[in-house]
Amino acid sequence: MLYLDHAATSPVRGEVLEAMHPYLTEAFGNPSSHHTAGETAARALEDARARVARALGMRTGDVIFTSGGTEANNLAVKGIVLGARQSGAPARHLVTTAIEHESVLDSADHLNRLHDVESTLVPVDEQGVLHPERLSAALREDTALVSFAHANNEIGTVQDVAALAAVARERAVPVHVDAVQSAGWLDLRQLGADAGVAAISVAGHKLGAPKGTGALAVRSRVPIEPLLHGGGQERGRRSGTENVAGAVALATALELAEAERARTVTAVAANTQEFIAGVLAAVPQARLSGHPTRRLPGTAAFTFAGTSGEAVLLELERRGVITSSGSACAAGSDEPSHVLVACGVAPEVAQTAVRFTFDRAPLPEGIAGRLAALVAEAVAGVLGG
Amino acid sequence: MLYLDHAATSPVRGEVLEAMHPYLTEAFGNPSSHHTAGETAARALEDARARVARALGMRTGDVIFTSGGTEANNLAVKGIVLGARQSGAPARHLVTTAIEHESVLDSADHLNRLHDVESTLVPVDEQGVLHPERLSAALREDTALVSFAHANNEIGTVQDVAALAAVARERAVPVHVDAVQSAGWLDLRQLGADAGVAAISVAGHKLGAPKGTGALAVRSRVPIEPLLHGGGQERGRRSGTENVAGAVALATALELAEAERARTVTAVAANTQEFIAGVLAAVPQARLSGHPTRRLPGTAAFTFAGTSGEAVLLELERRGVITSSGSACAAGSDEPSHVLVACGVAPEVAQTAVRFTFDRAPLPEGIAGRLAALVAEAVAGVLGG
Repeated sequence: MLYLDHAATSPVRGEVLEAMHPYLTEAFGNPSSHHTAGETAARALEDARARVARALGMRTGDVIFTSGGTEANNLAVKGIVLGARQSGAPARHLVTTAIEHESVLDSADHLNRLHDVESTLVPVDEQGVLHPERLSAALREDTALVSFAHANNEIGTVQDVAALAAVARERAVPVHVDAVQSAGWLDLRQLGADAGVAAISVAGHKLGAPKGTGALAVRSRVPIEPLLHGGGQERGRRSGTENVAGAVALATALELAEAERARTVTAVAANTQEFIAGVLAAVPQARLSGHPTRRLPGTAAFTFAGTSGEAVLLELERRGVITSSGSACAAGSDEPSHVLVACGVAPEVAQTAVRFTFDRAPLPEGIAGRLAALVAEAVAGVLGG
Repeated sequence: MLYLDHAATSPVRGEVLEAMHPYLTEAFGNPSSHHTAGETAARALEDARARVARALGMRTGDVIFTSGGTEANNLAVKGIVLGARQSGAPARHLVTTAIEHESVLDSADHLNRLHDVESTLVPVDEQGVLHPERLSAALREDTALVSFAHANNEIGTVQDVAALAAVARERAVPVHVDAVQSAGWLDLRQLGADAGVAAISVAGHKLGAPKGTGALAVRSRVPIEPLLHGGGQERGRRSGTENVAGAVALATALELAEAERARTVTAVAANTQEFIAGVLAAVPQARLSGHPTRRLPGTAAFTFAGTSGEAVLLELERRGVITSSGSACAAGSDEPSHVLVACGVAPEVAQTAVRFTFDRAPLPEGIAGRLAALVAEAVAGVLGG
């Protein structure tokens, strides 16, 4: 089987398993404990924190380890808006887009239901691009946060974070960037160091660290109401005994991906482009979703009008290719993808979506073309069947 | 070194590491994915859920996997109170005790600050026992939740859950029991099946599963506002890609502890009683904290009036014994323990607390007595120094 659903999740890398092993076994202390066992764990945790901060262009003290991308996004959206309100700001409004992950959109909905916070969902264009002037038009005096993804999880479109952040900075509104899908594929140091965003989310399990690991890096000056209250770990911003092995795993996976990025991303992007060109040439019904060039190097998403996406997936799986219709978080829903609908795709066409997300290791020579041929066979199988 | 801080955290058991390994490597799928890789992961997750439910006397569908005990307690306290309010109940009040873990007390404080929910902290007696008549007196018409720990984390006192739950049931108030410290030591099936509590929290890392794992089992009929919104995992009650390996680890650790409980607990309890008797006999300043008999089998907590707890810890560590003053979550705070103060211990005496928490494997013959002698030496060292 060829697994092409890496945007849903990836296996844990061997180097990561090895790096975390001591913190599951002999170096198992609780980092809050004031004895040698605790101190060893605390040192590993702080070292992991510094390494994650470096990859994101943030300061060590900004990094809050979380249980994953969903917690990081919930903490960013709810925590920053409620934190602003707790410190006396009006904070009755947040700005995001119609193509965000459910963890952002549903956090906004929670703020609306329980805290009377309004959201503006800024529209994107047909390729999923958020334009700075549209963002600017949505900002209000009482806007407490702008939140958008660096790269979309379903279609792979990459946003111009620097330009968007500049618009928000002019109005003194903090920006949260969901980098769950872009981590390891794009340079995140630019987000923290150059674009000066206030908060960045990452998830371990898309990167070769285990599920249940992630981080939100948020600048110390940004007040934040925690999601998890208690023992005051993570400088009072996320209570709960720290998952030391998970933090080490995330830091290791991020560092490995960063070290390999320059070498692998170009090769993977070339594979993906070859695959996209092959599919578009061989399948008359195929339409590429998202932006043709400003896209994640390993993501190729299509609609195949006139088919059923689920049927195409089954035909592909029969031919040894595992992939998905889009977000795993939305799999099983009968609703058409909110991302594709926001890009102007008709709901019945959105139901035909298939997303291929490649591994960071480049494919062997010739595979991209053969894959495109398999896709053509699968679509023909559905249309003929 | 002899590690006697198992209430803070424990190493991951070999059997648990082995059980989780496949879900970090070859069976790494996202359980929400609708392909074979996802389905394998989903089956493992549901199997783990059934095993955790069995250990707690709850139904499979009640179990929500969390990132640990703190998240489970936050979800119980905030989720049940806000869930009741969302479904139209008055829900302006909750009842807990003065000796709860920070994750419960600080969740109550959050509800107070952001949602105008009042808390009544029911007083306990000098041995840390919560009496049903005191609980009863605290209940109001608008009480949405009663939350207390099965066994206290600092002093080990075990509550009579059946009697306390009966009082709350009479008034139709759901009961949450924090079983983070009792899991593996006491029979939790009684809580779910016999006492009929509405929700039970457990944490993996006190049991031989990794940090970052835990669960809240909460009956399906109890409305709950999630802490983490998004993809709708865990039947919409806890979004985020499920930590499959962590769920398998928690289930494995709970089952192992349950299987061994009958055999080991009696032996450990005898070790602990021998140690307690030895310390009380050898150290004139020693006073046992908590209840003399209704206590966790592996917990022995003392105050040593006239010493400093931190100094005794250092003297013990010099002699090869690692232990703590109390909760790791509160280590580093200069405040006297809120638990001991609530039991009527003078603040200056509370500062002299030392807690010994034993492993589930019984000590070799003769060690308990030698340990008591070491404690006497350490206290004498501090008083003499």
